[in-house]
Amino acid sequence: MQPVNVGLLGLGTVGSGTVRVLARNHDEIARRAGRGIKITHAAARNLNDLGDLDLRGVRLTEDAAAVVNDPEIDIVVELIGGLSPARELVLAAIEQGKHVVTANKALIALHGNEIFAKAQEKGVMVAFEAAVAGGIPIIKAIREGLAGNRIEWLAGIINGTGNFILTEMRDKGRDFADVLAEAQSLGYAEADPTFDIEGIDAAHKLTILASIAFGVPLQFDKVYTEGISAISREDVSYANALGYRIKHLGVARRTPAGIELRVHPTLIPERRLIANVDGVLNAVLVWGDAVGPTLYYGAGAGSDPTASAVVADLVDVVRAMTTDPENRVPHLAFQADALSDIAILPIDEVETAFYLRLRVQDRTGVMADITRILADHEISIEAIRQQEPDDDDDDAADVIMLTQRVREGNMNQAIERIQELTSVIRPVTRIRLELLKQP
Amino acid sequence: MQPVNVGLLGLGTVGSGTVRVLARNHDEIARRAGRGIKITHAAARNLNDLGDLDLRGVRLTEDAAAVVNDPEIDIVVELIGGLSPARELVLAAIEQGKHVVTANKALIALHGNEIFAKAQEKGVMVAFEAAVAGGIPIIKAIREGLAGNRIEWLAGIINGTGNFILTEMRDKGRDFADVLAEAQSLGYAEADPTFDIEGIDAAHKLTILASIAFGVPLQFDKVYTEGISAISREDVSYANALGYRIKHLGVARRTPAGIELRVHPTLIPERRLIANVDGVLNAVLVWGDAVGPTLYYGAGAGSDPTASAVVADLVDVVRAMTTDPENRVPHLAFQADALSDIAILPIDEVETAFYLRLRVQDRTGVMADITRILADHEISIEAIRQQEPDDDDDDAADVIMLTQRVREGNMNQAIERIQELTSVIRPVTRIRLELLKQP
Repeated sequence: MQPVNVGLLGLGTVGSGTVRVLARNHDEIARRAGRGIKITHAAARNLNDLGDLDLRGVRLTEDAAAVVNDPEIDIVVELIGGLSPARELVLAAIEQGKHVVTANKALIALHGNEIFAKAQEKGVMVAFEAAVAGGIPIIKAIREGLAGNRIEWLAGIINGTGNFILTEMRDKGRDFADVLAEAQSLGYAEADPTFDIEGIDAAHKLTILASIAFGVPLQFDKVYTEGISAISREDVSYANALGYRIKHLGVARRTPAGIELRVHPTLIPERRLIANVDGVLNAVLVWGDAVGPTLYYGAGAGSDPTASAVVADLVDVVRAMTTDPENRVPHLAFQADALSDIAILPIDEVETAFYLRLRVQDRTGVMADITRILADHEISIEAIRQQEPDDDDDDAADVIMLTQRVREGNMNQAIERIQELTSVIRPVTRIRLELLKQP
Repeated sequence: MQPVNVGLLGLGTVGSGTVRVLARNHDEIARRAGRGIKITHAAARNLNDLGDLDLRGVRLTEDAAAVVNDPEIDIVVELIGGLSPARELVLAAIEQGKHVVTANKALIALHGNEIFAKAQEKGVMVAFEAAVAGGIPIIKAIREGLAGNRIEWLAGIINGTGNFILTEMRDKGRDFADVLAEAQSLGYAEADPTFDIEGIDAAHKLTILASIAFGVPLQFDKVYTEGISAISREDVSYANALGYRIKHLGVARRTPAGIELRVHPTLIPERRLIANVDGVLNAVLVWGDAVGPTLYYGAGAGSDPTASAVVADLVDVVRAMTTDPENRVPHLAFQADALSDIAILPIDEVETAFYLRLRVQDRTGVMADITRILADHEISIEAIRQQEPDDDDDDAADVIMLTQRVREGNMNQAIERIQELTSVIRPVTRIRLELLKQP
């Protein structure tokens, strides 16, 4: 059979990885797909900046639209990143009846609904395995592998930079700022690390995961997002002493009242497998009603791992090109006309357990005041520990509390009142805690 | 669209789970698949033995052939287990142009080549996700999710009973026989536990995993298989002290000389995620050249988890029914005419590191004799520890050694010579050790 002609937009980290993996494993891939997959036309921002990438046999251009408009191209692979011109190029490709493969999580999270509607109209596929958790086939696992399940919740370590920072803080007792600087020098973190450490990147990915898990439209603007920049070395160490790890999780959960969609630092029991996912690696834990908990682990970024997902999508698209469009795997796992309009819960309505750290004056009655306020807001205490703070303030103590599950609104009100106590001498630190156990 | 009619063979653990999951999640599944999936005809060995399973709307029979021959059935789900009559029924279904879904690992491992050839000839699909690692979508992950990779090796905890026993031995310092008896009383282990504890069940699954990873025909008879019944409490505890866990692994590895295919107890570093997979759970670690290591974890058995995989297969088959057979995912991941004839390595040719435990007379010169023999066979020692044995023999000591990687044939010869030393007073225990790190 004739090879499939692929047009590539972007020859940066993932683009060059895709070129290399397709070349290196050409035979292996063709033995699987039944036909060759060949990049015939590629666009890069600067053709003088391609290093020693072997691009023999590939037409090169600095004009991405020329690739999209090339009539010999069957599939356009968008690896430019960002929203514009990626969105316009993808829509143009679809308009011309071309299939699209993309690694662009921001694009899918923000414009996926529009893009998939257009693809549906034109009978083409838009594949995006590489947009979430790099090389881990998590989209496929949820969308197809767990198709028999009602997914109850999922929780993922879906930003490698954040996980690297938290791992270093724990393993070496280092401060956040210090580790971030190192991550930047190692190239794990961008010069502007906001997307990673403030959870925006994770929120993009969570938006996508939640849609395919629950069959709801993409709703990035509804994700509650909290970063890791406020996590202190002390919190990491106190959590450790209590048998917990702090991980930056994306959590999506189905509740009777609506869907929880949130990215935040989270204490999780150290015995959970996902608590032991360290460094830049990613993992997603998915709970289905039939299968129970399943976990998927691997490299969440990087040139070759992300290319692995891009190529897997290419093979899928090549196979499904001859399938009746109605029988293809739907973009968001559920048929486009069968998406659900379950509401996303406001964060105040979300229930989790909490870790609290309070710096208090070390004197009688303080604990009674605090626990009274918690009780007033229906917050049950699971554990309390008093710790000598690191610094030299003899008159102060750190109180660490773990609470049972409580509505976040109640917790906020309680903290506001606790903060008014004169014996509480610093802002209260509160970090959500998830057991990741119950269905 | 009309629902797809499914015929079910077997209403035991997995069969009843499949009925329940399809009923409970009917709407969710139809929203994904685009049409309903309905069991219309089912066969059980004894119709008086179905408990309170809700089978309204299902024609019931004790004659499995009647289901296979039912002209209104599009897909036959084989959940009888065993080789016969499962093989004959599956072949008969294929002969009639029906698609097949099966959870039968022995059937696929032993007769898969014949079954897939017949299916290829008739243009039908035989799906078998449930045959390996229960609800974990590992077949899909390797066959599709990692399609861009050259798979280098995989290692799996693919028998829950064995893993439960080893976990209990470690956590509670218990003896093998003692835990096995408990596992039997809990229903985790069969009355005849041979298949589980001697590694036959794992060898069936490994056979399948290796074929889809490397694109080789199924070759169950070539798997080297060693069980866990010889693992002692002491070995578990010594391994632990050295920073290792003993797991019963199925390992498949591509080497320049051929493919390694082996099931045996294995020491693995406790820091590896897979070393922390405990109890009846399963996990498979797969190393692809592009993606690096990925891990898939979840329930490897049980009614609902296995049904999860059966239903996912049903959805896949329903979708691909309209696909040109040549563009479907090939049964063994690679096109039937593109399978490779790479040889399976004899176990003597396999290279691993080893853990050795020797009971020796506690006197000068013993260590010199032993290390000389190892050196003569080109075996390098990584670590040595001497331990007081548990029992009261004052004149004896346990010597624990970790070696570097060595050809198994060399190790066997060395052990034979060590065993001839009069100062070595018991049979040498040797357990393979894998770092699971290098590609």
